[in-house]
Amino acid sequence: MTQFAIGIDGGGTSCRAAVADEKGNMLGIGKAGAANIMSDPQGALANIVASARDAFSNAGLDPEALRSSAVVLGAAGANIGAYGARIQEALPFAKSRVVTDSLIALQGALGRSDGVVGAFGTGSVYGARRNGEVKEIGGWGFVVGDQSSGARLGRDLLELALLAHDGVCSATDITRIVMDEFAGDPQKVVEFAHISKPRDFARYAPMIFDQARLGDAVAVQIVQRAARDIDQSLDALLWPECKTVCLLGGLAGAYRAWLRPDHQALLAEPKADALQGAVSFAIDLAGNGERLHA
Amino acid sequence: MTQFAIGIDGGGTSCRAAVADEKGNMLGIGKAGAANIMSDPQGALANIVASARDAFSNAGLDPEALRSSAVVLGAAGANIGAYGARIQEALPFAKSRVVTDSLIALQGALGRSDGVVGAFGTGSVYGARRNGEVKEIGGWGFVVGDQSSGARLGRDLLELALLAHDGVCSATDITRIVMDEFAGDPQKVVEFAHISKPRDFARYAPMIFDQARLGDAVAVQIVQRAARDIDQSLDALLWPECKTVCLLGGLAGAYRAWLRPDHQALLAEPKADALQGAVSFAIDLAGNGERLHA
Repeated sequence: MTQFAIGIDGGGTSCRAAVADEKGNMLGIGKAGAANIMSDPQGALANIVASARDAFSNAGLDPEALRSSAVVLGAAGANIGAYGARIQEALPFAKSRVVTDSLIALQGALGRSDGVVGAFGTGSVYGARRNGEVKEIGGWGFVVGDQSSGARLGRDLLELALLAHDGVCSATDITRIVMDEFAGDPQKVVEFAHISKPRDFARYAPMIFDQARLGDAVAVQIVQRAARDIDQSLDALLWPECKTVCLLGGLAGAYRAWLRPDHQALLAEPKADALQGAVSFAIDLAGNGERLHA
Repeated sequence: MTQFAIGIDGGGTSCRAAVADEKGNMLGIGKAGAANIMSDPQGALANIVASARDAFSNAGLDPEALRSSAVVLGAAGANIGAYGARIQEALPFAKSRVVTDSLIALQGALGRSDGVVGAFGTGSVYGARRNGEVKEIGGWGFVVGDQSSGARLGRDLLELALLAHDGVCSATDITRIVMDEFAGDPQKVVEFAHISKPRDFARYAPMIFDQARLGDAVAVQIVQRAARDIDQSLDALLWPECKTVCLLGGLAGAYRAWLRPDHQALLAEPKADALQGAVSFAIDLAGNGERLHA
């Protein structure tokens, strides 16, 4: 019999944990460093365990109790190759399950209900739960995926700023702001683009939404295209009886007003965050073993 | 007084040279290895000189005559930072000028006439000469530029194949061919995209045009968008009296039928290739020094 349920949200910059008793009462929360299970599995393993120990300490419990606990970890890459399975085997808890970061986010947002979620930060990914069955789409990364993500918005902006510089598109406030930032030198824009990571492109996203709200034609064009891509992905996941769409991530609020009215009408606030989603799965695991995809 | 005029087309895979007398009579041609003046300036310098010596040998002339010759080299990156100037100073010819690869291509295609050129291979770039003044646009690379290039066509295809796999867009023959190539595994598509160079993406371009001609909806969508981008760039460069548009590069012929009718009506065959353009500049340089942008 497992004593405690631990949910862990393993992220690229930090790892958060929460411990609950079998009835779901939250007892404590903890934190540790990054958990990149693909690029640094050893470091991830150490931080996952450290975050759980921190949560036990925070609850005034002996951290050694983790050995008689059930844990559910959500981490990016859990569905790729053997990364998730290897971490799951190495974890020192009584029962362990490793699932994707987007699955715990979906569970947090929807609770036990059916519905559709879309997450928009540096990247983008979608999930739906219908009659208990979870389906995920998107999340294929910056180069050939992650439509409507902050990184793709930023890349679109730099591309349009260069086209405006060349006189192919009209220059607007936002294209002038970008070119000014690079001292008017398109070659500097290209150099930035070639050394930058998705998060560097994503830094332009808040300005794009600000300018779009002000009516800047280029910013509006970028946001409208991104919102149309969201509408298409929602259409692929929605079914006639579905009543709930939750938008997650840093850009969720900004996109709200740009979606098609029928999608706006379905928008609901997420019930809880990804960490709560992991805890909720862990309570199931502590009680009856499975149900992770139910 | 310079004795001979040498044109050199310095490319990323090889370097071609041609030697002519002052009257423009072609005497011989030569070849050597790659001339990447940005990534390998020392190797580029050696191959540039080797290609010229080879051209003199081919003409039955003493290669040492290069020291009393005028040379014009066209090379990618000549307009970026000090790359062009550094190679120009290091060259052992009596007179040397280093210009962009696209400028010698424009000179070859248009001769001394005014007109517009667009080059579509792995990358893309445009140039126009109006009343002797040359203007270049585009060519900003794969990440945030090179619209309508082979690399961008291939990237679009992989993105749409993933969207079709997710059920966001309709699957067609070409998206099924792509997914079959990656054993139906979207993660393999993503891995390919993250390790691939522009030339790897560009390998899909011929298939995209083939499928577009057969009416494949996704291929048609990709090619129509790329052709619309070309139309926009041509509109930015054309002026009412301009009578000539030359398309260059491996995809030139394939795009012809997809352009707007008013642009199709202006299409003309290039008068000569980039190497001939370099020779033509070199003859000017041998005779009266400048005129490179005229």
